[in-house]
Amino acid sequence: MQKQSFSDAIWHRINQKTKPIGALGQLERVAHQIALIQSINKSDVVTEINIEQPTVLVFAGDHGVADEGVSIAPSAVTQQMVLNFLAGGAAINCFCRTNHVAMKVIDTGILLPVESDNADFVIQRLGQRTENFAQQAAMSQTQVEQGLSYGKSIVANVVASGCNLVMFGEMGIGNTSSASAILCALSGRSASECVGRGTGISDQQLSKKIAVVEKGVARCLGQSVEEVLAQVGGFEIVQMVGAFLGACEHRTPVIVDGFIVTAAAYVAAKINPLCRDYMIFAHQSHEAGHKYLLQELEAQPLLDLSLRLGEGTGAVLAVPLIRAAAEFYNTMASFEEAGVTV
Amino acid sequence: MQKQSFSDAIWHRINQKTKPIGALGQLERVAHQIALIQSINKSDVVTEINIEQPTVLVFAGDHGVADEGVSIAPSAVTQQMVLNFLAGGAAINCFCRTNHVAMKVIDTGILLPVESDNADFVIQRLGQRTENFAQQAAMSQTQVEQGLSYGKSIVANVVASGCNLVMFGEMGIGNTSSASAILCALSGRSASECVGRGTGISDQQLSKKIAVVEKGVARCLGQSVEEVLAQVGGFEIVQMVGAFLGACEHRTPVIVDGFIVTAAAYVAAKINPLCRDYMIFAHQSHEAGHKYLLQELEAQPLLDLSLRLGEGTGAVLAVPLIRAAAEFYNTMASFEEAGVTV
Repeated sequence: MQKQSFSDAIWHRINQKTKPIGALGQLERVAHQIALIQSINKSDVVTEINIEQPTVLVFAGDHGVADEGVSIAPSAVTQQMVLNFLAGGAAINCFCRTNHVAMKVIDTGILLPVESDNADFVIQRLGQRTENFAQQAAMSQTQVEQGLSYGKSIVANVVASGCNLVMFGEMGIGNTSSASAILCALSGRSASECVGRGTGISDQQLSKKIAVVEKGVARCLGQSVEEVLAQVGGFEIVQMVGAFLGACEHRTPVIVDGFIVTAAAYVAAKINPLCRDYMIFAHQSHEAGHKYLLQELEAQPLLDLSLRLGEGTGAVLAVPLIRAAAEFYNTMASFEEAGVTV
Repeated sequence: MQKQSFSDAIWHRINQKTKPIGALGQLERVAHQIALIQSINKSDVVTEINIEQPTVLVFAGDHGVADEGVSIAPSAVTQQMVLNFLAGGAAINCFCRTNHVAMKVIDTGILLPVESDNADFVIQRLGQRTENFAQQAAMSQTQVEQGLSYGKSIVANVVASGCNLVMFGEMGIGNTSSASAILCALSGRSASECVGRGTGISDQQLSKKIAVVEKGVARCLGQSVEEVLAQVGGFEIVQMVGAFLGACEHRTPVIVDGFIVTAAAYVAAKINPLCRDYMIFAHQSHEAGHKYLLQELEAQPLLDLSLRLGEGTGAVLAVPLIRAAAEFYNTMASFEEAGVTV
């Protein structure tokens, strides 16, 4: 009841701004969502949205299923890209710089570990890489539980340090196979609907990838969400699921990147439907399965820039839109204040 | 020939970055466009894109055609919104603040003039408002020429002061009617295709608006572009046409906002096709005629946020995407630099 009255009060505030009703489109929806989140446990709705220390957590992990030849690059590239993240040379670093977003890189279990004293490098390894899910379960239930716990704890840490807006990104050769398999297993859709070309595989690789996903999904029939994660998940995906659950616990909005991160969001919402309230969808991926994930989550992303990179790039690119939405909510004049005829 | 070899060299540079080919989608296209512009008259392609003092010029003007009842608001609102711009209370002000964009407001001929000592307020009035184009020509050829000249000169001024990226915005009750009439007259499309609901008119008003546009367009048959501007244009639209021509002369990229600004862009490209090379399209408007304008200009906007406000809001919201594109072009590591396996 309070939630509904707060929602109405926030729409009323937005509708008094000096613009036709609804004229700021999706930015109004975002402002409304964040204002509602930040009004929880307050006596009245907030009149100012605060965006503090937005932070992207980039989860890197490797996948045994990469042995099946379902990617354009070998697993070694995961390590090379982690080093690139730590050196500041990747696309995600560029967008963090221009958009004033902090970044942490999490090793959730890459094939070739790296040593680094970079303060923004976090080691939460669940193993050396997952097992090949075409042959056997990708990981154990113990690893799933540990991964969910790791994901929750890193969000708790960044929130404790003053961040109130998080994003998740990922790096992991083979992880579109894992995300597609999760979507198939939990939605009942066919592998041919859910599997796409990732960063750009051939027709032949695509057929192979569909067959591989079907093998993993066959073991998921009738299983729990956690068991599906064990069968066909990835270390970075499991930790992102935990991170979504943690963001919900800490009432912290999450900007959701593309296909892989949305798969984790979908799993988190299956575990705890309240998670959905905290999700702001950043980017419409052209990866085949993404539209189904968005349908399942009733989500409409802010951007469609034909990105197919992951890393959290879509989410970080949406941050200025969030800041713009907050600013109009906070400081745009009402009709009365501006003396504009309604 | 140099242009083609420069274009190839810029694509080569982009394709060496640590990402799959094309994985940054539309940001790659934007980086390529601006790098090519900034490489003109250089001995080699630039390795760094500079974005200096991005500035939005908001052109305000009133329209005699508003007397026909084709808008949701009276002409007095144009003045009220200009005062709102000058006080910092409008949506465009909010977005300029969060995106670090400078703003100037130009009175091109609003019904009720304002007095202000705001240094960012520029008076370039072509009259008190246009004539009602349902009855007669909106303005004279002399006014058209003066307006084009004013538009060129203000761009020359901001470029001289160090700005190298401009945006144009507009405010003017009745100006979707004018923009629709221009599109009809120059493209040969029917009024019912080109006329939309602006900021939200009723079905009855929409029928009236179509009839009004048809009256103005009937006088444009076989006329020159400049004569079409005189018949059905607006003071702010004519000055924006001049501003596009000026940006082309000064080799300055322009971020193009929604329907009204795109109509001015279309006219400018009719007068000088070279203008098109400098246009970066920001926002897909849902206003009926916008898709035709974009088709004519072979343009694909960066954003689609269901905005229907004008003011330059869509353009200013795209600025962080331009900065992100510049940053990846400038500082993202190549495969060789990062030691990433191709």
